[in-house]
Amino acid sequence: MERLLEEGSLRSLEEAILKAEGFTQEDAAGIADVLMLSDLYGIESHGAQRLFFYHQNLREGRIQVHAEPEVIRSTPVSALMDGHFAMGHLVGIRAMEEAIRRAQTAGVGIVAVRNSTHFGIAGYYTKMAADRGLAAFSMTNSAPFALPTFGAEKMMGTNPFSFSMPADPFPFWFDASTTVVTLGKVEVYNKREKEMPRGWVLDGQGRDLQEAGDANRILLSPGDGGLLPLGGPGEMLGGHKGYGLSVMVELLTGILSCGETAPELAGDKEGHACHFFLAFDPSLFGDPSGIRERASAYLQALRDSRKQPGHERIFTAGEKAARTCQRRLHEGIPVDGKTWTEIRTICTELGVDHPALTGEEENHDL
Amino acid sequence: MERLLEEGSLRSLEEAILKAEGFTQEDAAGIADVLMLSDLYGIESHGAQRLFFYHQNLREGRIQVHAEPEVIRSTPVSALMDGHFAMGHLVGIRAMEEAIRRAQTAGVGIVAVRNSTHFGIAGYYTKMAADRGLAAFSMTNSAPFALPTFGAEKMMGTNPFSFSMPADPFPFWFDASTTVVTLGKVEVYNKREKEMPRGWVLDGQGRDLQEAGDANRILLSPGDGGLLPLGGPGEMLGGHKGYGLSVMVELLTGILSCGETAPELAGDKEGHACHFFLAFDPSLFGDPSGIRERASAYLQALRDSRKQPGHERIFTAGEKAARTCQRRLHEGIPVDGKTWTEIRTICTELGVDHPALTGEEENHDL
Repeated sequence: MERLLEEGSLRSLEEAILKAEGFTQEDAAGIADVLMLSDLYGIESHGAQRLFFYHQNLREGRIQVHAEPEVIRSTPVSALMDGHFAMGHLVGIRAMEEAIRRAQTAGVGIVAVRNSTHFGIAGYYTKMAADRGLAAFSMTNSAPFALPTFGAEKMMGTNPFSFSMPADPFPFWFDASTTVVTLGKVEVYNKREKEMPRGWVLDGQGRDLQEAGDANRILLSPGDGGLLPLGGPGEMLGGHKGYGLSVMVELLTGILSCGETAPELAGDKEGHACHFFLAFDPSLFGDPSGIRERASAYLQALRDSRKQPGHERIFTAGEKAARTCQRRLHEGIPVDGKTWTEIRTICTELGVDHPALTGEEENHDL
Repeated sequence: MERLLEEGSLRSLEEAILKAEGFTQEDAAGIADVLMLSDLYGIESHGAQRLFFYHQNLREGRIQVHAEPEVIRSTPVSALMDGHFAMGHLVGIRAMEEAIRRAQTAGVGIVAVRNSTHFGIAGYYTKMAADRGLAAFSMTNSAPFALPTFGAEKMMGTNPFSFSMPADPFPFWFDASTTVVTLGKVEVYNKREKEMPRGWVLDGQGRDLQEAGDANRILLSPGDGGLLPLGGPGEMLGGHKGYGLSVMVELLTGILSCGETAPELAGDKEGHACHFFLAFDPSLFGDPSGIRERASAYLQALRDSRKQPGHERIFTAGEKAARTCQRRLHEGIPVDGKTWTEIRTICTELGVDHPALTGEEENHDL
């Protein structure tokens, strides 16, 4: 059954679990902050829902609890890091901090990272920069799920791309996979036994699949068939553009860092990843508060522009996330039944006792 | 009637025209080089076909022949430029040279440009960087043609985004509008009286248009309706992702440079534009020849990966352009009848005499 937990309660529970996994308080707080932002922003696929995946990877040694990410090459504007397969969130935070420090001193910082692991939402790291008045990019490669245009073989990850720039009342915050949808969306349709729209997944014969169960099996198998790049099949609706963006992300992550690329990120290496971060200071180009005001005004003009009949709202990137965050801070964070069962299993295995677990009657059942 | 001109002949004709417009030999050669690359790469919409548009803009003073682009703010890693409404190609070349010089000395260079004009293909400038072993981004805003997700009002340009990174036998060279298609594609369907696929253009009522004549009229009118962002209408196929990428381009061009944004680029300002360039040296992150080899190998693996039945080729971004270029250098460059008539008109108006015009019988009629 879905549960509704207070923000502080879920955060404290996650930190307790992560400490029991062997992380220091500081590291546990850092990882939990990434997970919490996902759930606060409404991106449940990357929040508490992932705890069990991380738990398994930690237990099986694919993520190293005590590894320290290391800067192995550095200039005033750049760093190359080796994540040593530490928890991806910690690697990501450390790497974006390196980029931010360089942006604050030299104006721009670029950091490429190899040998990292799944780092949660790419947008957590661009938000770190935007919170400090910087513009930033963040990207990661991932296990192969996506097809090249005209291809049958999984050759790219979902390869998310995030860009953020300061604005009011909330930043421009773009965070999206370069595929039409992610694996998580197909899973949701599968669970709800809903027919998928055409243009999400092709099988190995290039046939457009609408049955989510079949699609899900094909995505999780090493065989042919996979997610379509943004723009869909072929070139008529721009599928080659999404494919190109996806390859760009791989070149800036796996290739530039001399790490592993999507085709290698299978089997035992599925949780591995390489990242790319770039932060720069808008004050290189003018008064930063003036640029921020201009950005805010343009974004507001987009929201205020004329709507199509039947639509009352135009959103700008990050707006839904900011509104969901406000609401969930007040009303609580929904945790679905399966995730809650997994959390209880992890707590039993690790011997974690926490008020959020025992005080079940205090939580609202949905 | 379509004509086929030798590369050297068309280039020399374009330089002669541009000198007659008032440009120095050096500037004429620079502009012609951008136009020629478009035609060599098969992007006819941005090559010789645009000469008449530039001719009109020059005659009416919207492009300033003698203006000098100016660096008005500079750091070791960045520059802000004012194009003073010089020819966009010259502004773009100058700006990317500033970015490249900084990338060669400090490792990275970012240049934002305001008060420029239409600069041709965004990919010309990333190619400049890739030719010197650098990775680079190039973007520009443009007159409003595109709709926000759920919107009826033209609020963004086609906002092209280019990224290139050195590789062999040709670089990774991505250059694409952030809309499903560009205006030029709709024009081609209109000329050929072909029905357009769904998902390219909506009218002011949010209806998907397939009649290219109607679509073309709507795109060229200041009223509602316009091009859809990459991903199409609504959010089901990722239209909000294309919309977000399009807004990102506006933020990095019109907003960051404190220049004009798409909604302002109408009427007399339609040829104006703001640009963004970023170049960095891959050697910040490792041996550049090793990175180049790894990039080449991944791109080759994509091309060699299994195809969907009925498809014999998987392309990587820039491959079609490189192959078209090779072919056209040998076989000549096709110039369509309308463009040829326009070129003759310009030559008559400017008193340009050129062997390519008189030696018509030597050219192949197609």
